[in-house]
Amino acid sequence: MSARFAFNHATAKFWDQREAVEACARAGAGIGLWREPVQEMGVAATAKLVRDAGVAVTSLCRAGFFTDPTPAALEDNRRAIDEAAAVGAPVLVLVSGGIPDGGTIDSARDGVRQALAELAPYARERGVTLAIEPLHPMFASDRCVVTTLNEALDLAAPFAPEAVGVVVDTYHVWWDPQVWQGIARAGREGRIASFQFADWVTPLPAGVLTGRGQLGDGCVDFKRYLAEVDATGFTGPIEVELFNDALWARPGAEVFAETKAAFERVTA
Amino acid sequence: MSARFAFNHATAKFWDQREAVEACARAGAGIGLWREPVQEMGVAATAKLVRDAGVAVTSLCRAGFFTDPTPAALEDNRRAIDEAAAVGAPVLVLVSGGIPDGGTIDSARDGVRQALAELAPYARERGVTLAIEPLHPMFASDRCVVTTLNEALDLAAPFAPEAVGVVVDTYHVWWDPQVWQGIARAGREGRIASFQFADWVTPLPAGVLTGRGQLGDGCVDFKRYLAEVDATGFTGPIEVELFNDALWARPGAEVFAETKAAFERVTA
Repeated sequence: MSARFAFNHATAKFWDQREAVEACARAGAGIGLWREPVQEMGVAATAKLVRDAGVAVTSLCRAGFFTDPTPAALEDNRRAIDEAAAVGAPVLVLVSGGIPDGGTIDSARDGVRQALAELAPYARERGVTLAIEPLHPMFASDRCVVTTLNEALDLAAPFAPEAVGVVVDTYHVWWDPQVWQGIARAGREGRIASFQFADWVTPLPAGVLTGRGQLGDGCVDFKRYLAEVDATGFTGPIEVELFNDALWARPGAEVFAETKAAFERVTA
Repeated sequence: MSARFAFNHATAKFWDQREAVEACARAGAGIGLWREPVQEMGVAATAKLVRDAGVAVTSLCRAGFFTDPTPAALEDNRRAIDEAAAVGAPVLVLVSGGIPDGGTIDSARDGVRQALAELAPYARERGVTLAIEPLHPMFASDRCVVTTLNEALDLAAPFAPEAVGVVVDTYHVWWDPQVWQGIARAGREGRIASFQFADWVTPLPAGVLTGRGQLGDGCVDFKRYLAEVDATGFTGPIEVELFNDALWARPGAEVFAETKAAFERVTA
């Protein structure tokens, strides 16, 4: 299973991007990149870094935030698609954004539909799949109005699977009584663009953003997720993405080693 | 609309039960009682208090916690049903409980099914409706594995609507892309046993239990909830139940007045 391990840079958020890529190269792992460090190093320099290191970029995080699909929001998303293409990321992860001022969750969801219609052709032309990530419903008002796999699949439905897919992130979907059905549907529709692991632990911290658990510390049944996703025929990488203050405070190399070991344990 | 206002005692958790009942009597409001203060005053004394005050008990909170349906858990639920009958509460609110040690969310949901089958006949004989409350999915691991209206309705389906219904609490269901369909289904199936209001505000506090917003402070569209629930033919009370540290720190009478005014504003 370790051949499918990919390390999302956000798991060691403050680790230098070059060091993270080099660690992935040594471990034979893929990497999920983030726009801020990519822009900081430069898109062309990042592309050269991963190419020279022979590291597969499994995704670029993160665009979206287009529930109010202003021209500026759409332009930023086009830029993110260009960046994904440039660094060789087959997938651009989209977090939709929350409820804009004066809107409702229903109007915000309409905004997502409009934005996808604007962006899908642009992404397809550049060979990048837009991956709609449903986030846990505790983020529905301020971060992501897309809350379930089925909702993400409904949003993706008007577009070709090469243009618009979904992210299956255990942290966000583990509670959903429809999750097994949603995974099977996502596979059948060819929409699994990204598969991510994080564990669910409580108590949640204030603000709830940075409490994701190391694999094995919480209640997510990773073996079952692996089995259900594998059963759809998906053979792609599995990214571990943990937003966790305690991990962020530690040296990146240490977090990388611990995370890889945890991945091997929960998938063994 | 104010004729339908009911005050859940948990909104002013530390307010003396007698004073809360007397405030409801003066305001023509119903009251949602909690087991701990009822037991503290005594079940018979509480029954006399509300009867003498002419206050309708709209629900008794809270039983459940039977995802591991041990004999002790079931016995405590039978006691809660007896208490509901004794104080004249037509509805006993059930929060299912989280994932027991060694279990999974799926096994915990099986436990809920078993517990309901044990308890439904007992409740029906005593004229009490068990109301399954789906809680927000952020509570799914440690407090309530039932997360959506449709899931609650599926759990209720084997039983007569007089025996098992559901709670529609805006705080817990507002994010659900299926919520309007779920409300319509709940009405059609005669399962709306309790209708509760609380607003969704962020940022969430650590532990996420005590961050419910006063009506109007957040993103819940109460007028739409009222319209959708009314459209099913439901004419029952609307309980306001806010778990909020800042409210709990204030005098109960003040919280009651503020909450009633907020209810009138959001339903006007």
